[in-house]
Amino acid sequence: MGRISVAGVPSYESVTSLFEGYAKEDPTYTAQLCVHVDGERVIDLAQGMGPDALVPVYSSTKGASATVISLLVQQGRLDLSAVVAEYWPEFAQAGKESVTVRQLLSHQAGLPGVDGGFSWEELLAHGQMAERLAAQRPFWAPGQAFMYHGLTIGTLADELVRRIDGRTMTEAFQQEVTGPRGIDFWMGTPESEDHRCVEALPPTAEELTSFLQESPGALGGGDALGALSIPAGGALDLLARVNDPGFRRVGQPAAGGLSSARGLAALYAGLRHDLGGVPRLLTEDTISQMSQIQVAGTELGTGLPARFGVMFQVPCPPRWSFGGVGAFGHDGAGGSLAFCDPRLGIAFGYTVQRLPLPGGMDKRAVELARAVRSCLR
Amino acid sequence: MGRISVAGVPSYESVTSLFEGYAKEDPTYTAQLCVHVDGERVIDLAQGMGPDALVPVYSSTKGASATVISLLVQQGRLDLSAVVAEYWPEFAQAGKESVTVRQLLSHQAGLPGVDGGFSWEELLAHGQMAERLAAQRPFWAPGQAFMYHGLTIGTLADELVRRIDGRTMTEAFQQEVTGPRGIDFWMGTPESEDHRCVEALPPTAEELTSFLQESPGALGGGDALGALSIPAGGALDLLARVNDPGFRRVGQPAAGGLSSARGLAALYAGLRHDLGGVPRLLTEDTISQMSQIQVAGTELGTGLPARFGVMFQVPCPPRWSFGGVGAFGHDGAGGSLAFCDPRLGIAFGYTVQRLPLPGGMDKRAVELARAVRSCLR
Amino acid sequence: MGRISVAGVPSYESVTSLFEGYAKEDPTYTAQLCVHVDGERVIDLAQGMGPDALVPVYSSTKGASATVISLLVQQGRLDLSAVVAEYWPEFAQAGKESVTVRQLLSHQAGLPGVDGGFSWEELLAHGQMAERLAAQRPFWAPGQAFMYHGLTIGTLADELVRRIDGRTMTEAFQQEVTGPRGIDFWMGTPESEDHRCVEALPPTAEELTSFLQESPGALGGGDALGALSIPAGGALDLLARVNDPGFRRVGQPAAGGLSSARGLAALYAGLRHDLGGVPRLLTEDTISQMSQIQVAGTELGTGLPARFGVMFQVPCPPRWSFGGVGAFGHDGAGGSLAFCDPRLGIAFGYTVQRLPLPGGMDKRAVELARAVRSCLR
Repeated sequence: MGRISVAGVPSYESVTSLFEGYAKEDPTYTAQLCVHVDGERVIDLAQGMGPDALVPVYSSTKGASATVISLLVQQGRLDLSAVVAEYWPEFAQAGKESVTVRQLLSHQAGLPGVDGGFSWEELLAHGQMAERLAAQRPFWAPGQAFMYHGLTIGTLADELVRRIDGRTMTEAFQQEVTGPRGIDFWMGTPESEDHRCVEALPPTAEELTSFLQESPGALGGGDALGALSIPAGGALDLLARVNDPGFRRVGQPAAGGLSSARGLAALYAGLRHDLGGVPRLLTEDTISQMSQIQVAGTELGTGLPARFGVMFQVPCPPRWSFGGVGAFGHDGAGGSLAFCDPRLGIAFGYTVQRLPLPGGMDKRAVELARAVRSCLR
Repeated sequence: MGRISVAGVPSYESVTSLFEGYAKEDPTYTAQLCVHVDGERVIDLAQGMGPDALVPVYSSTKGASATVISLLVQQGRLDLSAVVAEYWPEFAQAGKESVTVRQLLSHQAGLPGVDGGFSWEELLAHGQMAERLAAQRPFWAPGQAFMYHGLTIGTLADELVRRIDGRTMTEAFQQEVTGPRGIDFWMGTPESEDHRCVEALPPTAEELTSFLQESPGALGGGDALGALSIPAGGALDLLARVNDPGFRRVGQPAAGGLSSARGLAALYAGLRHDLGGVPRLLTEDTISQMSQIQVAGTELGTGLPARFGVMFQVPCPPRWSFGGVGAFGHDGAGGSLAFCDPRLGIAFGYTVQRLPLPGGMDKRAVELARAVRSCLR
Repeated sequence: MGRISVAGVPSYESVTSLFEGYAKEDPTYTAQLCVHVDGERVIDLAQGMGPDALVPVYSSTKGASATVISLLVQQGRLDLSAVVAEYWPEFAQAGKESVTVRQLLSHQAGLPGVDGGFSWEELLAHGQMAERLAAQRPFWAPGQAFMYHGLTIGTLADELVRRIDGRTMTEAFQQEVTGPRGIDFWMGTPESEDHRCVEALPPTAEELTSFLQESPGALGGGDALGALSIPAGGALDLLARVNDPGFRRVGQPAAGGLSSARGLAALYAGLRHDLGGVPRLLTEDTISQMSQIQVAGTELGTGLPARFGVMFQVPCPPRWSFGGVGAFGHDGAGGSLAFCDPRLGIAFGYTVQRLPLPGGMDKRAVELARAVRSCLR
């Protein structure tokens, strides 16, 4: 990946070529890529859809929720080392008295689900779901293990925001983060934007067959804990669910957001740079608190290596090789990837319409991220 | 594994066929299987020995000891989060002041053995062994790692029971758990039952040769820590030891029990159901405390993945795939398996006379457990 | 490895043969081996250099620094369970208020480097480096993960010594440990010894090629965290650095020592035995505190299994198979190995001039250690 620079200005032609190459390899490739470097948008590409199309970004929504949490931390209203019950007294049930905020927001609290399971309706309605989580005995001793809380971390973070701020997560996000800056990320997409929404697509039957031949058992799991984190119907139901306008309207804070790559890149650019005439959202100190590795190792459920900061994913090679030391962001089941790499000044956004197997950050997004880094070193 | 049900009543023919198939494959197969579902005994099979034969069940004894611990927790006499020294002041030596009960009872306290080793005689006599463990500096910083305390966990749990209750583990078990309910599990087998006792058998030379060819080094270990947990003479000596009437009489609370599959299944059925006219032993809340994952990961010594609740094993696929979320129980080195899977209402007991390599839960027991689950879903 | 003993005295001919065999296999083999058993020097071999040649021993220096820490613990001046800030108040910055000494000294504190990197000059000058580490936000939540602090652990331990004792690590080491006992280990090698110093050699091009063919990617890493722990220039620069007289003079407490195998073995022998007419340095209780496993698992950075006591490495098979339960010591990147195995009374020292790939304890050293153990059992 060569770097061609004129008068000290890096060229990103290698990135553009790579992106265009994907389109040549696969005529159905439908994706967006947007990158800011040092606060300037330097790459803005779209293929198969417009650059302003809104795509369900699944768990990249967690990165959006994390920005609201970051603000509360920065304002001194939320202490990551405090116990959750300080903000949410009902949480102190069933052995959770000493669970800390940082454990709760890094998938360590043992609350990926609730006894008896939960429904999509409960999840979207929030209130009863939060109550059930507050009453739940953790599935593991908090802090002793971790497992991705695919959906419930949204409810848990949302309830913290409501208790501390009075507003909901989606309100605070819109009013404090995206609204003032004109960031095209929607946690709760209004009807007015429906015309721009693109449907998330499942993998083709051909892709699925070939994937399962190469990786037999890859979708099997085997650890029953994994099934706790989603309603009955499982992952396939989630894939369909995101295309439902009702789901889209709610903007569940773990998985319900829609965005363009422009929106994703702007979200992370705005953390460290003026955007739309509004000052940067976070200080370097806040960023270092939120991106600090909170947990690392093999997660329950998938049995895969993972590392989390506070709600953010952090690089965990070879599984998540999106950035260097200090980078933080979040992928989505459908293939999206959004992150900030402060050392290189990168804010990166990527969406793709059709889920790349096995789900989670598209390999092509990781390659594009590597190409961007190569241009800057 | 098909499920055939008449008027909503599941049939367990698939399980019976599977069990009978093992006997056809191997004419020397000598085993028992007993299963309760929702408090009713639905499977009761024996092959090569009578259904009331008593078999050394090695570490399935830990599940029996765990029921006594559960009772103390339920009665509010033992707090899992308290430090051990609250109940056992002499334990507060050599850096163990802040070791908690839950760490002690989930193989995290760093006490798989003692400096200089210990003898079978010391182990069975209890008193001096408990004193040595109280004085011992943990082999790792408590809570920082875990390794199966194959024998000492019995001494440690027993001493806790003695300090809190005044009775020994075996007395409390007989008087509170098995006696009133007529459960055929013996922690300390009296002479009166000797006529029913069956000898545990080692693997045949043929099995051993073929196993070592397929898994060279499987019995080697390599981590010297592993040898701490048993007296000199090692695992092979343990295999012989369980057939000694003196050993059998003591009923060491980690490995000294004898039971039929009927006894194992009844033990776990009685936790959640009336048995022999006596109310269930434990509440769901107590069960959820005891079965909660206390530690998960790679254990020292074997280098294998493991998960423990409080004294109980919990499912850890693919190594221990005996049940779903919330299941708990314990296998034995000789191949036995006993567990409760509350979500499906299963209480499962299995014994086998000849140790299946590499030791621990018989693969056939795991397959039988899967077959039972298939009948219920 | 046969053991031939005359009148109860073990013979170490098998060890000698093994060492001589390496020289026959590889005519350029340049190494020293020295072993004490129960306080007596029983093996003393050198090949390609004299037995008193001083070789850069890289991280085996950490074992030397650990002896000074051990003394402070034994004297009751340093409590491993206390927070670092009790001795070093400025350390209580950026979320490090509750980091304990045992976390700091077992690679768990999240301080393998500093934001923006550090230079060799800063490292050797100590003062500013210590300040930067005190101000640094940990790269992971302390205690939640671990990664080898290849160089900074020297600065951190040195600063603790300075705060508690007033002397520097190198002064305390020379005055309390090596000086009185005449141990030929130099943390800060004076000009007077330069004539005995041997240059550390990199692997030959042939070795490097063949290694990379067998283990492609072995030197690649992939986890950006790994690069935090050394100045820009990386590991290759470290290899050259140790041959610089200025570097040698300083004796950086993590990696700057020079020693003969005689010095290494004497260092560990003196911990438990009279040496040069001076009583043993440490009690068995101090040793058991320092050698207790503080952390075990997969380290960040390399992704390899590791176990650490307090500053000392402890055996972690199959990666570090140098001893039995209770053994402790430290290897060096250049291939050296030094350890004490108290159960067998072994104090072991080994140096080698040319770095054996992939770096760290020479496989031959591990084989020699095994051979010594075989002679004693």
